[in-house]
Amino acid sequence: MHLDVNLTAAVTTFLTAFLVSAVSGKFIIPFLRRLKAGQTERDEGPKSHLKKTGTPNMGGLMILLGVTAACLLPFRGQSQSIPVLILTIGFGIIGFMDDYIKVVKKRSDGLSVLQKFALQIVVSLLFAFYVQKIHYVPLSMKIPFMSGNVLDLGVFNIPLMVFVIVATVNGTNFTDGVDGLASCVTIAVAVFFVIAAAAAASSVAMTGTAMIGALMGFLLYNAYPAKVFMGDTGSLALGGFVAGMAYMLRLPLFILIVGFIYVIEVVSVIIQVTWFRRTGGKRFFRMAPIHHHFELGGWSEVRVVAVFTIVTAVLGALAILAL
Amino acid sequence: MHLDVNLTAAVTTFLTAFLVSAVSGKFIIPFLRRLKAGQTERDEGPKSHLKKTGTPNMGGLMILLGVTAACLLPFRGQSQSIPVLILTIGFGIIGFMDDYIKVVKKRSDGLSVLQKFALQIVVSLLFAFYVQKIHYVPLSMKIPFMSGNVLDLGVFNIPLMVFVIVATVNGTNFTDGVDGLASCVTIAVAVFFVIAAAAAASSVAMTGTAMIGALMGFLLYNAYPAKVFMGDTGSLALGGFVAGMAYMLRLPLFILIVGFIYVIEVVSVIIQVTWFRRTGGKRFFRMAPIHHHFELGGWSEVRVVAVFTIVTAVLGALAILAL
Repeated sequence: MHLDVNLTAAVTTFLTAFLVSAVSGKFIIPFLRRLKAGQTERDEGPKSHLKKTGTPNMGGLMILLGVTAACLLPFRGQSQSIPVLILTIGFGIIGFMDDYIKVVKKRSDGLSVLQKFALQIVVSLLFAFYVQKIHYVPLSMKIPFMSGNVLDLGVFNIPLMVFVIVATVNGTNFTDGVDGLASCVTIAVAVFFVIAAAAAASSVAMTGTAMIGALMGFLLYNAYPAKVFMGDTGSLALGGFVAGMAYMLRLPLFILIVGFIYVIEVVSVIIQVTWFRRTGGKRFFRMAPIHHHFELGGWSEVRVVAVFTIVTAVLGALAILAL
Repeated sequence: MHLDVNLTAAVTTFLTAFLVSAVSGKFIIPFLRRLKAGQTERDEGPKSHLKKTGTPNMGGLMILLGVTAACLLPFRGQSQSIPVLILTIGFGIIGFMDDYIKVVKKRSDGLSVLQKFALQIVVSLLFAFYVQKIHYVPLSMKIPFMSGNVLDLGVFNIPLMVFVIVATVNGTNFTDGVDGLASCVTIAVAVFFVIAAAAAASSVAMTGTAMIGALMGFLLYNAYPAKVFMGDTGSLALGGFVAGMAYMLRLPLFILIVGFIYVIEVVSVIIQVTWFRRTGGKRFFRMAPIHHHFELGGWSEVRVVAVFTIVTAVLGALAILAL
């Protein structure tokens, strides 16, 4: 199979996003510190996480800057990357509002659940409109391991799309509790990059290299011990990005494979809560989302990140076979 | 530019190597433990490394098994991967001898320097012979940023090749002192994979995906806190692999870019020793190789690995531009 990639453009996009993201950290991190943007960790996490208090979050701004700059550079303003950016920046803004309220009001909960979901649905609908009316990308989905088959729910495609996007974004958000899980997203994006290149969807592929570069710029500062966290600004933006890239390729069902880690994060919370209610107070996992379960079982955060990243890579390989 | 890759074969190779490497760990690690293959850390490293005593090394065996199995599978026995395997396994055996002597004789130094270099030169010459006489790959080298130009030293190509291989291998070996630097090699191999795919050298590219899979299988156990180290078995094999892949693509000079981390590891030792002698006892770095310098400056091992990996990715992108 030919991967149809303008290698020079891919590399230039990667480097641009990396540089913008990495250099912006030099300005954004001190700024966030001055904002006293210290994260107030909720009491729910393992105690070892309390040491994170004081490290600024909202580092997702670096990622947003890097990926936007690389995609919008004159020589790179390709139309297919615009809807992905809409979803990324839209969710980034929702995350930023959430983070900002936490910081300014010194409250740990940010936006209300209702506010969050309402905003998320608005951004998702904007994306659905843009994709269908401007780019004529159908909302029906290809089915993994059944090439040629398509899932088309007609008028229900849009509610399904909103559900997929919101679920992906909130899965990413759950996963953010562990340092360096950006590396997991990096691999997921790399898989979608390969798929985009194989589908000759070069502007979608370029959007992928831009995100990989931006994530690496961020990881420079986020590597343990983290100088900055991405916050909801980053994790919502990443979720939006992955969902957007998947939809441009008509492969949202593949998120279940490539984003398996997000899926088990969300599902583990649902199981935990349901089990807790059903049994009148028993826990299914030591703690949910499931990365806390592993940490309390003795895994270091680094091991959690490494294993999650490798699992993503292996499932990503399977996803490519499932095309 | 078209990347000419059989995506299905690439993914199958990756998964095979990953599975063999990961599953073999279940058997090899307990075996190494029984062998009392505890690593005796030299006193030279920072004190925080002393805790590593007791963790078995020689985990490189897992990598060797994974990459060999994936390359030699019936449907994958492509000729161009054979010389790369010769170099990888040859150096792996030298590393294994070194590790084994350390373990059995409970001595910390293993093979003598003379023995090591003699064996390394023999393996390098075997590779040179095989590549020239069986595969007719010329030993002259393409020059980065000067496409079309070739460095051809005639009869001196072979000594230069031996020097490049031995230097690469020993650079990798220096770098092994830090957990998880396998992730650095993973990126370097990925870059050579892209270059091989762009050059339509598909069997060399497949060798790359095999190595990436094998490394990920190994990383499952090597992630902090490590259950196994690759030892010299692994680090020499990896050095041989990178040098072999580079030579098959006629790009050994690109090792200086993609393997920049190895270069600065070696160069930092040379600078340190020279400076120490010249100044009559002063140190240029806090400690050499240079990763110790950063660790003593307050970087965690995780940060060293992350930064080194990202630097490799960025330089790898530049190397692709330099084709």
